[in-house]
Amino acid sequence: MRFSFPSIYDILFSMTDFTEMGKKAIQAKGDLIQADTEAKNRALLSVADALVANAEEILAANEEDLKRGREKGMKEGLLDRLKLDEKRIAAMAEGVREVAALPDPDGEVLETFLRPNGMEVQKVRVPLGVIGIIYESRPNVTADAFSLCFKSGNVTVLKGGSDAISSNIAIAGIIRRTLEENGITPDALQLIADTDREVTKEFMRRRDFIDVLIPRGSASLIRTTVEESRIPVIETGTGNCHVYVDRDADLSMALDILINAKTQRNSVCNAAESLVVHEAVAEAFLPEAFRALTEHGVEIRADAAAKRIMKDARVKDATEEDFATEYLDAVISVNIVKDLAEAIAHINRYHTKHSDCIVTKDQSAAERFLREIDSACVYHNVSTRFTDGFEFGFGAEIGISTQMLHARGPMGLRELTTYKYRIRGNGQIRH
Amino acid sequence: MRFSFPSIYDILFSMTDFTEMGKKAIQAKGDLIQADTEAKNRALLSVADALVANAEEILAANEEDLKRGREKGMKEGLLDRLKLDEKRIAAMAEGVREVAALPDPDGEVLETFLRPNGMEVQKVRVPLGVIGIIYESRPNVTADAFSLCFKSGNVTVLKGGSDAISSNIAIAGIIRRTLEENGITPDALQLIADTDREVTKEFMRRRDFIDVLIPRGSASLIRTTVEESRIPVIETGTGNCHVYVDRDADLSMALDILINAKTQRNSVCNAAESLVVHEAVAEAFLPEAFRALTEHGVEIRADAAAKRIMKDARVKDATEEDFATEYLDAVISVNIVKDLAEAIAHINRYHTKHSDCIVTKDQSAAERFLREIDSACVYHNVSTRFTDGFEFGFGAEIGISTQMLHARGPMGLRELTTYKYRIRGNGQIRH
Repeated sequence: MRFSFPSIYDILFSMTDFTEMGKKAIQAKGDLIQADTEAKNRALLSVADALVANAEEILAANEEDLKRGREKGMKEGLLDRLKLDEKRIAAMAEGVREVAALPDPDGEVLETFLRPNGMEVQKVRVPLGVIGIIYESRPNVTADAFSLCFKSGNVTVLKGGSDAISSNIAIAGIIRRTLEENGITPDALQLIADTDREVTKEFMRRRDFIDVLIPRGSASLIRTTVEESRIPVIETGTGNCHVYVDRDADLSMALDILINAKTQRNSVCNAAESLVVHEAVAEAFLPEAFRALTEHGVEIRADAAAKRIMKDARVKDATEEDFATEYLDAVISVNIVKDLAEAIAHINRYHTKHSDCIVTKDQSAAERFLREIDSACVYHNVSTRFTDGFEFGFGAEIGISTQMLHARGPMGLRELTTYKYRIRGNGQIRH
Repeated sequence: MRFSFPSIYDILFSMTDFTEMGKKAIQAKGDLIQADTEAKNRALLSVADALVANAEEILAANEEDLKRGREKGMKEGLLDRLKLDEKRIAAMAEGVREVAALPDPDGEVLETFLRPNGMEVQKVRVPLGVIGIIYESRPNVTADAFSLCFKSGNVTVLKGGSDAISSNIAIAGIIRRTLEENGITPDALQLIADTDREVTKEFMRRRDFIDVLIPRGSASLIRTTVEESRIPVIETGTGNCHVYVDRDADLSMALDILINAKTQRNSVCNAAESLVVHEAVAEAFLPEAFRALTEHGVEIRADAAAKRIMKDARVKDATEEDFATEYLDAVISVNIVKDLAEAIAHINRYHTKHSDCIVTKDQSAAERFLREIDSACVYHNVSTRFTDGFEFGFGAEIGISTQMLHARGPMGLRELTTYKYRIRGNGQIRH
């Protein structure tokens, strides 16, 4: 079954030559537009099978990455993110199968309108084109990002982290071989195997063939991409999420939501980082919140008023910086506000436009919060942890957008498309 | 009626202080979200009236610009673009009134879905936030861009060209006064009155308060903005538009469309710049095309095969660069292709993803062209000149997007919005 054994070297060889890569990507874009849904699904299912069938090849490559990691003293947590095993490969393959089962967004007619001159204007969903994805150490992103971009009709160019380079080369090689076996151009996926930083910088400037750049990873990766890129970027992932406990909150519900949002998984972007409490319920709520958060091992950094109420030496002073920080850890900032307006102003000032929640029984307070908070996802009496492509029912997720343009919040297949107009007529000219 | 006489100096004073400007813009964003459709429309109608009522002030300022222009030897065409008179001011006011009459896109519910856990997810159209617009010498853009951004709920920050600075200050000053008279914060419009290039550069980096940047003007302005900006940019306007005459074209229709697309107005982005002809009809079509184009004073630059057919010394050789050029002038490039596939490849290689047209009676050729040409607007048997917000029935236009992200083609009010999710529940937490 294996198509061309030296494909890893092919990939390595081609990587730094962006002109060549660009030609191939643009050619692949033209080819891919001719692949129908069935052909794309067939290829994806083959890719899933091939990942499992070639698990040994992937694991051998992964072992190289792990060895290099251990040699340079990588921390246990990072090594674990890097590590693949048969179970993780099976999960990766299953993810690809799930994407195959999702509806194809390409070609969906969004709108049709007839103009007075008789021309018919049709607004149709189409792929974005060539999507560049920059990511860090998790090698499963290679298969995951490819499958989402491919299913939505896009050509994928991946730049993974140097830590996972051997695993990424192996996985991308298997995908490329499998595409070719399915009669689809292997250049629908290209991997930049060069780990040099200058190469990454150059990549971010290749507007000539990359249509959109999506960084997936740490806040610093995203910041660098936004600073350096000349290609339109979709910013993802940074979440300084707030839970606001209003004067009319059901305090027991507020506690459940707070604990869920902060502690169910604190290393993710939709976890809460900040608690804002209306002064009218601060005395009643904060001691309870303190007890529950402390029980869950969460460190509290509070403003003076909240500190006074919690009366415990373990509560630290919150600085201005705390209010603006995405901890991704068992830490939370707390402050008291005198009313809803102050809560909205505080949140809109410090948040990252990701996810924020109000807990209240007051319908009009809730509606004002839902309208005025400037986030991708604004919640009323629901934990912020639901900002997620799967929880929203998209069936997949490439990331959570925190920018204003194009897509906001969870991005699934539809968010990897754009639209164009097709106009049909019989000789209309403009007068 | 005049609210605060020294407003021009206020604006001038505040301009280079981006921190102060940012504070005001963010404050204005919060204020504007509370203005309902009626309040916005009332303010817009007052602005229209105020522009007419204060025509003298505008004309006096405009005369300063014209005087400076003449002194530095500005060409007649540019002076004409810069010049305002009572009629042009009336047209500007009428434009503002038309925007007031359009439906308000803010708050439109795009989708609602109930998740299995009982939470209701609502996708709602919302303003982009603070829109920065960089433009060149036409002072009417000041009122035009403001009215579109304002109606869609956005705060506007304008950076006009130095040539029109006095006119822009006068117009922006009148708008700000009128907003204030209508109980709306004047900071919904801020004008950068500083004409220093470094200031423009700094402006393009202020991600802290500008959400989106839209350059309106020449290709070089747009290129600079894309290169320098750290803010997401919506690219507009560059149009290397093609007319492709297929083997099965109605040649008389093809000629009408070609002449309309090339000559009805050659200085605009949706005018044709390139003619592509199927070899099977080249002998029949090109001599006719030559005669008609030449009659309209259009210079032809053709490949060798087309030149041979046209047999006239006035036909020049087309270089590679010609195929990639947006002339915005009475010039057209011509080439012959051997089939539809070559036509599609040629157009996708050289176009600017703006507007391209196929003329054919062959339905399947048309559908393939509509699908495979990677432009915002793809036409079958219709002139490219219809790529326009008014012709599409949007009632307004801020520009024609040529990028893939967010919006493509004509951008009206809806394209100046984004969306957010409002999620309502009764205590849902994630397990």
